[in-house]
Amino acid sequence: MLSFPTNKPLIVITMGDPSGIGPEIIMKALADLSKERSAVFVIVGDAGVMRSAAASFYGKPLAVKRIGDSFEQDAVNLVDPGPELKGVKAGISTDDGARKALSCLDTAIRIVRDAPEGASPAMVTAPVSKERIARLSPGFVGHTEYLEKAFSSRMVTMAMVGKHFTVIPVTRHIPLSEVPGKLTTRLIVDTIAQVVESRYLLSGKDAARIGVAALNPHGGEGGHIGKEEIDIINPAVDKARSFYGAIEGPLPADVIFYKAFNKEIDIVVSMYHDQCLAPFKMVDFATGVNTTLGLGCVRTSPDHGTAFDIAGKGLASPTSMEEAIRLAARAVRAS
Amino acid sequence: MLSFPTNKPLIVITMGDPSGIGPEIIMKALADLSKERSAVFVIVGDAGVMRSAAASFYGKPLAVKRIGDSFEQDAVNLVDPGPELKGVKAGISTDDGARKALSCLDTAIRIVRDAPEGASPAMVTAPVSKERIARLSPGFVGHTEYLEKAFSSRMVTMAMVGKHFTVIPVTRHIPLSEVPGKLTTRLIVDTIAQVVESRYLLSGKDAARIGVAALNPHGGEGGHIGKEEIDIINPAVDKARSFYGAIEGPLPADVIFYKAFNKEIDIVVSMYHDQCLAPFKMVDFATGVNTTLGLGCVRTSPDHGTAFDIAGKGLASPTSMEEAIRLAARAVRAS
Repeated sequence: MLSFPTNKPLIVITMGDPSGIGPEIIMKALADLSKERSAVFVIVGDAGVMRSAAASFYGKPLAVKRIGDSFEQDAVNLVDPGPELKGVKAGISTDDGARKALSCLDTAIRIVRDAPEGASPAMVTAPVSKERIARLSPGFVGHTEYLEKAFSSRMVTMAMVGKHFTVIPVTRHIPLSEVPGKLTTRLIVDTIAQVVESRYLLSGKDAARIGVAALNPHGGEGGHIGKEEIDIINPAVDKARSFYGAIEGPLPADVIFYKAFNKEIDIVVSMYHDQCLAPFKMVDFATGVNTTLGLGCVRTSPDHGTAFDIAGKGLASPTSMEEAIRLAARAVRAS
Repeated sequence: MLSFPTNKPLIVITMGDPSGIGPEIIMKALADLSKERSAVFVIVGDAGVMRSAAASFYGKPLAVKRIGDSFEQDAVNLVDPGPELKGVKAGISTDDGARKALSCLDTAIRIVRDAPEGASPAMVTAPVSKERIARLSPGFVGHTEYLEKAFSSRMVTMAMVGKHFTVIPVTRHIPLSEVPGKLTTRLIVDTIAQVVESRYLLSGKDAARIGVAALNPHGGEGGHIGKEEIDIINPAVDKARSFYGAIEGPLPADVIFYKAFNKEIDIVVSMYHDQCLAPFKMVDFATGVNTTLGLGCVRTSPDHGTAFDIAGKGLASPTSMEEAIRLAARAVRAS
């Protein structure tokens, strides 16, 4: 049993791959955010790696805790599930490092899952090497799917929150040729329902304006360029309007992002990965935050990878990690 | 036989639908461009409609010509294939208006096609009502396809030239589900070849940097999320590099537009309509210019429709038409 602070939200941050930029950007972000701190922070990571990152980029010592200890409200707490890594080299990915990253993730999940009623903790995950973890733990494809299983979710939705707008792909990492076959009215309605439920997290507004993208060029032009709008997406939008009014669509992809970029739409529900990620990353490449809906707790992460090529050089920008932590804090406060 | 000016390029502009914003934006654009005029302009349109638009938005009379007359270099020339329309009302689309728009397009094609060797005229087309023309002339789907037939082209390519970057969709107005099946290495190579040939028109640079987009999320992740990159797109990029060096790709859609927006790539060759038009129109909604490659002459058009809802109110922005005329002038001078 873990002890939770009673008057501040708890944000649990995983280290990610110890040889990547995770430790550096976590400590840089917490240093930058130290004045607006309204949450209690717990890092789950390797004690040696995180102490060293804290010495370089944070300037204050971490409060090392074991599971069962109380967390300190005025320090950054560190939980290390052990055993401590030896000889970690920045930029050089190892099996031991990947194993430790996964074990930290598991411990973070446990801290969040075992949280007492009402604690509403949030999780922020630093990047891992998917390929290396997949070799140690076959079937690992990424945080989102791993957390979906760990939290026994019926369905998770991935959202990218940017400075300009927020996007949600209804289908994710599948070949483009499989997208039309995967789309169902039910899947779109369920996705919109999760978006509506999390609209404050996703937009900072209770009255968020949601746009739903069409699948085909020009929105199918009344069935002349594809029937999915008529058969699948229109009925989904109609149904979704029965539980939330401010929904527009289906809008052609070459209209909806113009409207979003020009602040006429806050959240774009899109039919497939590249439809929304291409315009999103064009203007929010390094600043977007990935968040997973449907876990029962909030989870955010920076929108980039381990960046082994620049790890250990002090060059990594903490912006996306800062935004991920800010978003988690917004979510916890809003819940 | 038409008389061509000898020392200036000729730009032939079609009126488009007489009840749309075409006449207004043509005359506004020519007024705005009157100081930088390095071409001879011929409008093919209805005499009454264009005279009225000139009176409101241009301020000088048009030089009305018949086919066979010499064009004036210091005035805007007007050719009306007749018969003159009566009772045209702005905003109210009619069969007579659509018929006249099509007949003006045919006359413009004739002027351009019959041009003497070395005249290198360019065509700028104002928007028409595709739906209404299709009712009168079944099979009409748009300017691009109509011109493809009229000029007996083996293959045309549509490009959108914006302030930020230029995009070319390899496939155009087809359902998303048909995109993977239409892509072949040959089609992609042929498209890139037309782009390379027109790179100065498309980018204003002889050393344009061309990027080729992937089809699947994350570029297929080495075949894990779709095989088209490995089977179709990689071989096309390799082959294209044999005739032009500055080609990068296939790049994931959520990377390539970031690079284009940040001036690391000038021209994006994309696999399907929404992949490039969504990010393009997000930042160049009203300023993009549509141009058709492969006709044997340059053709540009503003990137918007007839806008019947604002026609006749003086509210239409000529920006995209101005850019279309400027691009045509650039092309004619470059040829």
